[in-house]
Parts: sequence; C-alpha cells; structure tokens
Amino acid sequence: MTSANDLIALIRFVLVRTSHPGNIGSAARAMRTMGFSRMELVTPARFPSPEAVAMAAGADDVLEAAGLHGGLVDSLAGSNLALGLSARRRGVNLPEISPREAAAQVLAAAARGEQVALVFGNERTGLENEELARCHAMVRIPSVDDFSSLNLSQAVQVMAYELRVALLGEDLPPPPVPQDAEPLADAAQMERFYEHLAQMLDDIDFHKGRAPTTIMLRLRKLFQRAQMDERELRMLHGVFADAQRMAKLARRD
Amino acid sequence: MTSANDLIALIRFVLVRTSHPGNIGSAARAMRTMGFSRMELVTPARFPSPEAVAMAAGADDVLEAAGLHGGLVDSLAGSNLALGLSARRRGVNLPEISPREAAAQVLAAAARGEQVALVFGNERTGLENEELARCHAMVRIPSVDDFSSLNLSQAVQVMAYELRVALLGEDLPPPPVPQDAEPLADAAQMERFYEHLAQMLDDIDFHKGRAPTTIMLRLRKLFQRAQMDERELRMLHGVFADAQRMAKLARRD
Repeated sequence: MTSANDLIALIRFVLVRTSHPGNIGSAARAMRTMGFSRMELVTPARFPSPEAVAMAAGADDVLEAAGLHGGLVDSLAGSNLALGLSARRRGVNLPEISPREAAAQVLAAAARGEQVALVFGNERTGLENEELARCHAMVRIPSVDDFSSLNLSQAVQVMAYELRVALLGEDLPPPPVPQDAEPLADAAQMERFYEHLAQMLDDIDFHKGRAPTTIMLRLRKLFQRAQMDERELRMLHGVFADAQRMAKLARRD
Repeated sequence: MTSANDLIALIRFVLVRTSHPGNIGSAARAMRTMGFSRMELVTPARFPSPEAVAMAAGADDVLEAAGLHGGLVDSLAGSNLALGLSARRRGVNLPEISPREAAAQVLAAAARGEQVALVFGNERTGLENEELARCHAMVRIPSVDDFSSLNLSQAVQVMAYELRVALLGEDLPPPPVPQDAEPLADAAQMERFYEHLAQMLDDIDFHKGRAPTTIMLRLRKLFQRAQMDERELRMLHGVFADAQRMAKLARRD
C-alpha cells in the first residue's frame, strides 16, 4: 500500500528562469502548506536570496533543499511525466488539461512509482516553446481571458492545492471533532426542548387564540436545522424558564 | 436563465483588518484572474497604498471600486450568506466545509439571487471568534497540520479558483427555489434580531449579573447556523416581544 508520503516524494515543482527571488520564496511556502517539499530551480535570476527566505515565511527547508540547474533537461532527470503550466498558446501541439485533471494524472503516475515534474515558467514570458516541448501536457489554470496572468506563486498554490485535495481523496481525515465539542442533542432531548418551548409560548400568551400547530412546525424546522448541541439546549431551556418566570410574576394579581 | 456574470455580481470578497497593503493588491489580482471584482475592506492598516497598486499588477479596477468599512457588519450589508476562511479552531461551533463545498454553496445561494460574502481575516491572527460568529460556516483550506498558514492572497486565490471552476462546470446549480420560499434574512436584519434578542434577555433578567458576551456569542453561532428566512425572523421577534411584555407586567409594581 502506497502512502501519501511515498507519492509526495515522487513529485517535484520546477521553476524555470524565475526573475524575482521573492516568488521563489512564496512558491516554497505555497508548496509547503500543501505538504510538498521538492523544488528544482532552473537558472533563477538570483538565488539564494534573503527575499526568498523572507517570502518563504518559515518554509526554509524547501529552499535549502532546492536543486539548482543550468537547464530544464537537468531538472527533469529521472522524471517520467512532465506537465507544463501555461496560458493557452498557439502552435504548441500538446494536450491541454485542467489543474484537476493534471492532479489526477500526477497521482496515477506516482502510484505506478513514476517521478513527476510540474514545470512553471518565467513570471513575464512563461515557458518557451522549446521548454514546453519537454513536457507531456500543458496545464491551463482557467483564468478569465481579459486578465489571465496569475502570479507565479499563485499558480504553484493552485496546482499544489489540487494535488493535495486529490491526495486526500476518499480517505479524508475523519470529521474534525474539536476536543471540547459538546455532544449534539439527541431526539429525546429535542422533544423535551420543543415541549418546553411550546409551554413557554403558551405562558407568555404568544398564540393569542390562534392554533399553535403551524407555529410549532415552523419552529421545529428552524431548530432542527440548527443541529444544536447539549450546551445550546441548556442555554435555551434557561431562557425559556426565565420568560416563564416573568409570565408567572405578571399574572400574580 | 442566470448567467455567470449575474452570479459573480452577487459575490463579494471581504478582507478584514489586513495588515499589509501589498496583500490587498495580490488579493485583487487573484480575484481578477478568476473573474471576480467586488472587494470590501474592513479597517485595513493602510489603504489606498502604492504597494497595493503595485501588487495588483493591473487589477486597479478592483482596488478602485473596493468598499471601505469600519466594521465587519457594515461590509456584509445585504448579504445572506457569509463564509469565513479559517484554520481549524477549537470552541467555534460552526460547520467546517472545504473550499469545493463552499464554492457549491456559494453558487447555489447566488442562483437563488442571494448575496454572498467570503470573509478573510488578518494575516497573522485570522478571524476573531466574534467575526466568525457573523459567518454561517467556516471554510478550511486543507493545508498540512505542521505548516498550515497560507498567505492571505493565496487563500483568496484558492477560493476564487474553486468558484471559477464551479462556475465553468456544466453543473450550474439548478434553481432549487420552491415557489413559496421566503428570502433569507440579510446581515442587517440579523443584527436587528440579535439586538432584540439581547434586549429581551436583559428584560427577563436572564444574565443575573453575569457578563452577556459569551452567551450572545453562543446564540449568534446557533442562529447564524440556522440561516433563517424573514418569516422565521418575524416569528421570533414576536416571541421576544411577548416575553418582554410579560417582563414589563411583572415589574409593574
């Protein structure tokens, strides 16, 4: 059985000819939040750099382990599948897939034990055609036509996010029960709650001669929807009791 | 037939107490790449700012049209559904949904003609509990536990991306509007509801000297979760008014 970590170890993020070291740092942070750590840099304008460290916001391990390469081919060594992130492009004869499809293909390849590269071009010019020619498919993030350029680290974030969602797949972590969660009220508790609510409405003379049926039905729908826990139920019982106390005092004389 | 643009016009991105103006610019760019343009700012540390313009990379229209607000409630005016982006949190009794689920809920609400807010907290501290108490659900981006903090604009990018993918999907939510559906209460109506609730609790002497803050926070969470419509709100206003009437009678002498 392949674990998520085994798959993750097979996936690298390749940044090609990055101009701004801050973007390398932001990309490292984006990768790290989604559990990825293997970064390969192809002829970055400046690296290492304090700007990269600043923008990594603690993902220093990713930067420190990053490989430095003189060309794209080097950075792809050992990989079986390379996907190039790119805006739509004329004259490139590559299949165009969405980030979600890409994530599925990447995980399928990794599950077969293959190494995979996600390749991101220069901030302004993207990937050159001859760089794309090293890729097996082009991943297009579905931006709008009149404003299509994502920041480099944003593109990394979207791709890393889709990979993480795909990795989490069906085996999503069990529903997050906070340690201090109160148990949800059960059906019997809810029935006692509605009885108390109905009695309180009578006591404060809410119905004024009308039949209470419709009102109680609407209140039931409302409170069922809220899925209250036991603490909330106790709180509302307390409110009802005080309203009843006032009603009783009001009727004293 | 509802067009994508009609839906998009109903969706706002709310940035609360943003420290770095550059992040406001990056968020504007991230929104704009995915076709969104309505940004509301709640007490940003600095705005307008040349750093915001620089990072917007051409999404100046988003910045220029951004609303400035003194508090979260203002920024939510007219909205029927508010989703707060947040890391997992103890003691917050809100449903936790994924960005993908959130996108589906947002589009379903917009398809019913409801206005929707996506709420992003401060870079370092996120959303305060009392800000989350104005939200109907918490959206958690599935980051890894040991490095969970996305940059603000990255969180905006992920959410905007999921919305765009959902918008593009064939599966535009079918209009699930029963003919007799009441409109959901908007943020201003909910605020008036909470004011009335708080006043009623005072009048029936529910607090008995304790500070009302925690109780009100819990009640807010409960009723936000219930996503009440206007008819339900009217009904509860009626109940509160009768409880107050009893309390007044009780104090007659």
